[in-house]
Amino acid sequence: LEAGDFPRLAALLADEHPSDVAHILEQLGGEQRTELIDLLRPSFDGEVLAYLPGELREEVIGQLEPKELAAAMAELDTDDAVDVIQDMEEEDQAAILANLPPETRALVEEGLTFPEYSAGRLMSREFVSVPMFWTVGKLLDYLRAAAVSGSDEVPEQFYDIFIVDPRHKVAGTVPLSRVLRAKRGVKLNEILHEDIHRIPATMDQEEVARLFRKYGLVSAPVVDGGGRLLGVITVDDVVDVIEEEAEADLLALGGVEEGDLYRAVLDTTKSRFRWLFINLITAIVASVVIGLFEATIEQVVALAVLMPIVASMGGNAGTQTLTVAVRALATRELSEANALRVVGKEVLVGTANGVLFAVIAGLTAFAWFQDPLIGVVIAAAMVINLVCAGLFGALIPLGLNRLGIDPAVSSAVFLTTVTDVVGFLAFLGLATLILF
Amino acid sequence: LEAGDFPRLAALLADEHPSDVAHILEQLGGEQRTELIDLLRPSFDGEVLAYLPGELREEVIGQLEPKELAAAMAELDTDDAVDVIQDMEEEDQAAILANLPPETRALVEEGLTFPEYSAGRLMSREFVSVPMFWTVGKLLDYLRAAAVSGSDEVPEQFYDIFIVDPRHKVAGTVPLSRVLRAKRGVKLNEILHEDIHRIPATMDQEEVARLFRKYGLVSAPVVDGGGRLLGVITVDDVVDVIEEEAEADLLALGGVEEGDLYRAVLDTTKSRFRWLFINLITAIVASVVIGLFEATIEQVVALAVLMPIVASMGGNAGTQTLTVAVRALATRELSEANALRVVGKEVLVGTANGVLFAVIAGLTAFAWFQDPLIGVVIAAAMVINLVCAGLFGALIPLGLNRLGIDPAVSSAVFLTTVTDVVGFLAFLGLATLILF
Repeated sequence: LEAGDFPRLAALLADEHPSDVAHILEQLGGEQRTELIDLLRPSFDGEVLAYLPGELREEVIGQLEPKELAAAMAELDTDDAVDVIQDMEEEDQAAILANLPPETRALVEEGLTFPEYSAGRLMSREFVSVPMFWTVGKLLDYLRAAAVSGSDEVPEQFYDIFIVDPRHKVAGTVPLSRVLRAKRGVKLNEILHEDIHRIPATMDQEEVARLFRKYGLVSAPVVDGGGRLLGVITVDDVVDVIEEEAEADLLALGGVEEGDLYRAVLDTTKSRFRWLFINLITAIVASVVIGLFEATIEQVVALAVLMPIVASMGGNAGTQTLTVAVRALATRELSEANALRVVGKEVLVGTANGVLFAVIAGLTAFAWFQDPLIGVVIAAAMVINLVCAGLFGALIPLGLNRLGIDPAVSSAVFLTTVTDVVGFLAFLGLATLILF
Repeated sequence: LEAGDFPRLAALLADEHPSDVAHILEQLGGEQRTELIDLLRPSFDGEVLAYLPGELREEVIGQLEPKELAAAMAELDTDDAVDVIQDMEEEDQAAILANLPPETRALVEEGLTFPEYSAGRLMSREFVSVPMFWTVGKLLDYLRAAAVSGSDEVPEQFYDIFIVDPRHKVAGTVPLSRVLRAKRGVKLNEILHEDIHRIPATMDQEEVARLFRKYGLVSAPVVDGGGRLLGVITVDDVVDVIEEEAEADLLALGGVEEGDLYRAVLDTTKSRFRWLFINLITAIVASVVIGLFEATIEQVVALAVLMPIVASMGGNAGTQTLTVAVRALATRELSEANALRVVGKEVLVGTANGVLFAVIAGLTAFAWFQDPLIGVVIAAAMVINLVCAGLFGALIPLGLNRLGIDPAVSSAVFLTTVTDVVGFLAFLGLATLILF
């Protein structure tokens, strides 16, 4: 592999699980990846696309011809096909769709009509639905007959039988383990679960993931506005959503975009530049605040030495609060119902740690510069900034969330501005008042 | 609900899904929670415990009597029971175990013998395993008979039939959808999947989650060293692990511990104090560096005004790199194989953004203080610090990871120290050299 024997690698990969092929592609550098994809092209396994992270997938798609791509995609389940095709440019989409078999094409096109990140995009169209008056025996005969005839009405893998009424509305589900335990004569409407979670096709995928997690679901029916069965979402799709959402929050808090790892140097530079530029503005605002006290600093240089401590402690304490709040908002553990209590707690924690660090920093500054007043100034500024850090660390994400803005993406900039400005203002302002 | 009509609430909750009850408990404040738990006590639903986050679960457990708790736990599947009991003090564990029915007790005790966070702790002991010479018909008869007799050999919900050889080694699995499609006369060993993922009981749960996600598994057999079937892990347990692991990284990067949201003010203050204290040391180190240049600052106060800009930009750029690296290490997208390439890329991105921000910051400083040399100094320091930020933002997590230390927990402190020290040293050092 290290030796670059790519033809042999390609031959070996042909027998591997598509997710292993995807993993190898992830690990390779740009040029080696291009080389390997070229070797895999003649019989590119569509499933590999489903396992690749977004950025890499685009790269691979860009390298394949529409016909090769359509051939690869024809093997995919409709949910995976929709997932792959939805991120492409419109003209590329059209080229692929034109090369798909008509039936698959219709299903994929229908999937694309649902909003992005909705249950409709996530669902698969392959499911087993039967009328409620059927018996277990009739169901078994139907499934066995479908297996013999090779009909594609019955998917390879499924976990629940959906029971529909004559208007195709979902009456309930029967888990397969329940079918297996029932005698042939039992009617399906005697053993169905009616109290199930019907997922509207327009529901946001984050909400879908929350439902699956909350109720430990393995599959759930997706319905239209009239309650009619459209498709099924299975837990493996949801696992991906959960990982993606958690990853999106983590990356957003760190100021990077998804797919960063696979971008070329220039693209990464560009995408990170934006965030750094906003931070430069914040830093300049903080500098302007310091500039107001030039005269004070000129007389007591010790202030310049100590002032980053107050700002930095505020920033870190605020980030602690922010992280807890952003995460709790994402999992819905934090809501309007307990917002006030959480804000109150954060202010108390900020006060408590503010007092503790006021004592430590005050004594340190006193010992260092042999001036008790400098100790008093840094102590007072520390309490003020840590209380503000707690307050705004909680209020900023709550406020953004209420405005419908993702708190993970933008909270940090606002918070740093607050803790920097308050930190420098409190420290240098108090110094000007007390020392002169 | 707001009116505090708790007895009525308790009555309503008795019919709700345990996860909804858990959600209500999460939303309440400490005292209200205590009150509600007291009302639920006489018939506390053990499943609620399984849905509560760790910190809250301990609170509830502390409030219930051992007998009440044992009664609640007797209803749980073994995996959930092990999950609940493993976090308790040893004497509490003993009290609960003594009150459990003997059979459950033996299984739970066995579960506890596996290492923490291992597949053995995660697995359920309720599964269906049958000999390989059985036919589909015999399997169906067995399952139906078990349903009639109410035998607890067959769990309520299962997704795969495990096929074992005479020594109880796993020969393969048959998904239920495959059983349903097969005729009665078909032998199980004709339709089993042999190429399956057998999970050793000692495997770390993170590794288990990765396997499930990678191969889209719904359930997998857990085996001992000799390949004998011990239990089954289902995807709903894995979904929890995935969420927990992603959450752990996110919280660690923000400098907070898990369960922070549910801790009382004093506990939260204490747990956050540690992280802030380490950051105080870092900030003091940075101040010592500034202190080296007191004489320079005294002569050109503009330096004190501008110096936080360089340090702050370095910190933010470094955090971007750090976030990408920590996440990619967690998902194994970053490994020894591509480490060098990633470090190289980060240095290039740091250089590119360093040059861009050098120009912006240099011109800003020149315009502000009307001194071209100050512009040159901040520009040069910016390039140096952003290159270091990229280099150490990648090297620190990689290094910690190789030493077996979780990079999410400790990378940020090391990085801030580097970007602060390098930022102040480069800016003030260059100023001393160039301006005088």
